[in-house]
Amino acid sequence: MLNATGGRFPTLDFAGGTVVHITSGVSALVTALYLGRRLGYPKEPISPHSMVLCFIGAGLLWVGWFGFNAGSALGAGPLATSAFVNTQFAAAAGALAWGAAEWIRSGKPSALGAVSGAVAGLATVTQAAGFVQPISAVLIGLIAGAGCFFMVVKVKNWFGYDDSLDAFGVHGVGGTMGALLTGIFASSAINPIFGKDALGHARPTGWVDGNHAQVLHQLTAAGIAWGFAIVGTLAILFVVDHLVGVRVSEDDEEQGLDLSQHGEQGYDWESNAS
Amino acid sequence: MLNATGGRFPTLDFAGGTVVHITSGVSALVTALYLGRRLGYPKEPISPHSMVLCFIGAGLLWVGWFGFNAGSALGAGPLATSAFVNTQFAAAAGALAWGAAEWIRSGKPSALGAVSGAVAGLATVTQAAGFVQPISAVLIGLIAGAGCFFMVVKVKNWFGYDDSLDAFGVHGVGGTMGALLTGIFASSAINPIFGKDALGHARPTGWVDGNHAQVLHQLTAAGIAWGFAIVGTLAILFVVDHLVGVRVSEDDEEQGLDLSQHGEQGYDWESNAS
Amino acid sequence: MLNATGGRFPTLDFAGGTVVHITSGVSALVTALYLGRRLGYPKEPISPHSMVLCFIGAGLLWVGWFGFNAGSALGAGPLATSAFVNTQFAAAAGALAWGAAEWIRSGKPSALGAVSGAVAGLATVTQAAGFVQPISAVLIGLIAGAGCFFMVVKVKNWFGYDDSLDAFGVHGVGGTMGALLTGIFASSAINPIFGKDALGHARPTGWVDGNHAQVLHQLTAAGIAWGFAIVGTLAILFVVDHLVGVRVSEDDEEQGLDLSQHGEQGYDWESNAS
Repeated sequence: MLNATGGRFPTLDFAGGTVVHITSGVSALVTALYLGRRLGYPKEPISPHSMVLCFIGAGLLWVGWFGFNAGSALGAGPLATSAFVNTQFAAAAGALAWGAAEWIRSGKPSALGAVSGAVAGLATVTQAAGFVQPISAVLIGLIAGAGCFFMVVKVKNWFGYDDSLDAFGVHGVGGTMGALLTGIFASSAINPIFGKDALGHARPTGWVDGNHAQVLHQLTAAGIAWGFAIVGTLAILFVVDHLVGVRVSEDDEEQGLDLSQHGEQGYDWESNAS
Repeated sequence: MLNATGGRFPTLDFAGGTVVHITSGVSALVTALYLGRRLGYPKEPISPHSMVLCFIGAGLLWVGWFGFNAGSALGAGPLATSAFVNTQFAAAAGALAWGAAEWIRSGKPSALGAVSGAVAGLATVTQAAGFVQPISAVLIGLIAGAGCFFMVVKVKNWFGYDDSLDAFGVHGVGGTMGALLTGIFASSAINPIFGKDALGHARPTGWVDGNHAQVLHQLTAAGIAWGFAIVGTLAILFVVDHLVGVRVSEDDEEQGLDLSQHGEQGYDWESNAS
Repeated sequence: MLNATGGRFPTLDFAGGTVVHITSGVSALVTALYLGRRLGYPKEPISPHSMVLCFIGAGLLWVGWFGFNAGSALGAGPLATSAFVNTQFAAAAGALAWGAAEWIRSGKPSALGAVSGAVAGLATVTQAAGFVQPISAVLIGLIAGAGCFFMVVKVKNWFGYDDSLDAFGVHGVGGTMGALLTGIFASSAINPIFGKDALGHARPTGWVDGNHAQVLHQLTAAGIAWGFAIVGTLAILFVVDHLVGVRVSEDDEEQGLDLSQHGEQGYDWESNAS
């Protein structure tokens, strides 16, 4: 969606990164703090159940994101092409940056790091997709991969909250960085969304065009989304907690939620494995 | 395909639910009765091999169905949008209805139930996709989820046939309900397929428009599809059974068809698991 | 891309089979010969780790190929439809041909054979997709399935190289056969790419149109791609080998590259299997 409100704070958000990624990530952080940690975290290591599923899921997500970002042009044409290309570049750059950060830190880039970086790049470029040059999308992806890596590997441990899927570290932080970076890199050469001035020239959109105030507008929008997500999530958690509760019993958690809440298991290798 | 034959029985079937879901589901029932049950069924429990694969498959199916239903508009435009939206609403409503039915019955909604309900909603809305209002698609999905749940969990056990994938309970029953529900909910506001009358008004399409006879036309088409599927499947089974046989030996069935018929196994964890 | 260079050697390659499949397959062969075999190969059997993942991957690849081949028409229209239909027919025919070859040889068609044949059909029809009649695509798929089966099951064993994913046997051989078969089956009835002559008739494109020289042009293009891939891959391998090396130590290979190079494992069933 093209959010050029045209009023006092004309914020730019091409495909809804503010309403999807900032709000979901911040809501995840609030919920993680409200719920508390999983039993055993962080003393007992809890590694991903299946890297194979992580990889399949990330691949499907990457492809689906093209529909989300390019589709936000609401029509097949040059703008959709820009959004498509920027989405691909940011995802690839994010995967490379996160993998490089792991390589420097532990000597081994991992598949989990690559897909985390790709999703960080995708979340961060969502607002910028239809506003920036391809080279800016590469920079956005590199910043996203390195920045979200730092949040997930360092900052999360400092604070000690348990965000099992890193929804805040990737979507919340990526979405917030995306708001800022859109204000910096938005270019009227890609999308002259603010129209033309009296002389027929496209009005500047981002910092690179000379519209320095856009960065403040973006940060304002991100701040409003943060506030809305914090207050709204706390209200929902409060109501649900007092109606039906928001955390299972320790016994149910030990048994696992698949069995205790849904009565089914992920695999049944024994009874009919081939 | 827009099946407005325009003759004495102008049946409505937007994306081919009659020729795909009714016939495949009824053929599955005929084949299940002809083949007989798997060894051990229903005394030995045979649970899904991998819920993870069920979920991935259902997700891919759900996305592919947009191409199937919306693509049947044969062009990008308002009609394709209607079919797309109705497909999404019916699938989601079906998932909720099946899960709610499980919740009421056993206290635990399951992932298998959610994906079964989604597929039931998709199969049932196929004929109606390009003819009904979005709110009608929600109702169709709810009816599909609850109705197919009843067929699969209750009626199948009363009759005792072994339909391992519930092709009849979901596709056959869903497709047949879809034929009926299309006759009820088809609206000329979405698709004035029967043209205009002498006064320039769109002719009514379904029961909600006042065209009560449409329900009979839909049931007639469904009945013809049932008859065609029963007779055709029996003829094919008879010929194949006498040429090469249609059921493996008990030894092959005990060993599993992967090994006995294809000489391969689904997984080889031992020789090169990471 | 429509590669009708229009010069002395007007080669035909609709969706880039020469630059993607011939070069990748030949580069894989060069790399396999340069690296040498995996430890234990071919004495210890190394079967596919998970046929389930093979099948999911092949399904996603098949669907993605529609975008690749039909998208090379650079617009929605009759030419994209031709490429789409030919892609489907060749993939299906390739799966049937490979399965039939297995059936004749060992009595059991396998799922691995079916997906290998489908990919062989897809790789082989890539150059021809927007130039040939649907019936030609079926023939191309059958030739692809049988030809690549022969390469992978017979010829590879004669030469003894270790191409674990059969990138050469499927993509290299399929791409090379595709160059030749495009020269044979390209038809101006599908794509009058060489324009019209002075009398207003479409100029012949492939052998079936009477343009026998096209076969030589196709083989020339394939030969150039082979040469480019061999020389380029050897140069890259030489440089990388002397800078950082191209093969892990025997210890790392015994341990597996997941653990030794990336520090992660594909599955962690123990710590949190459901």
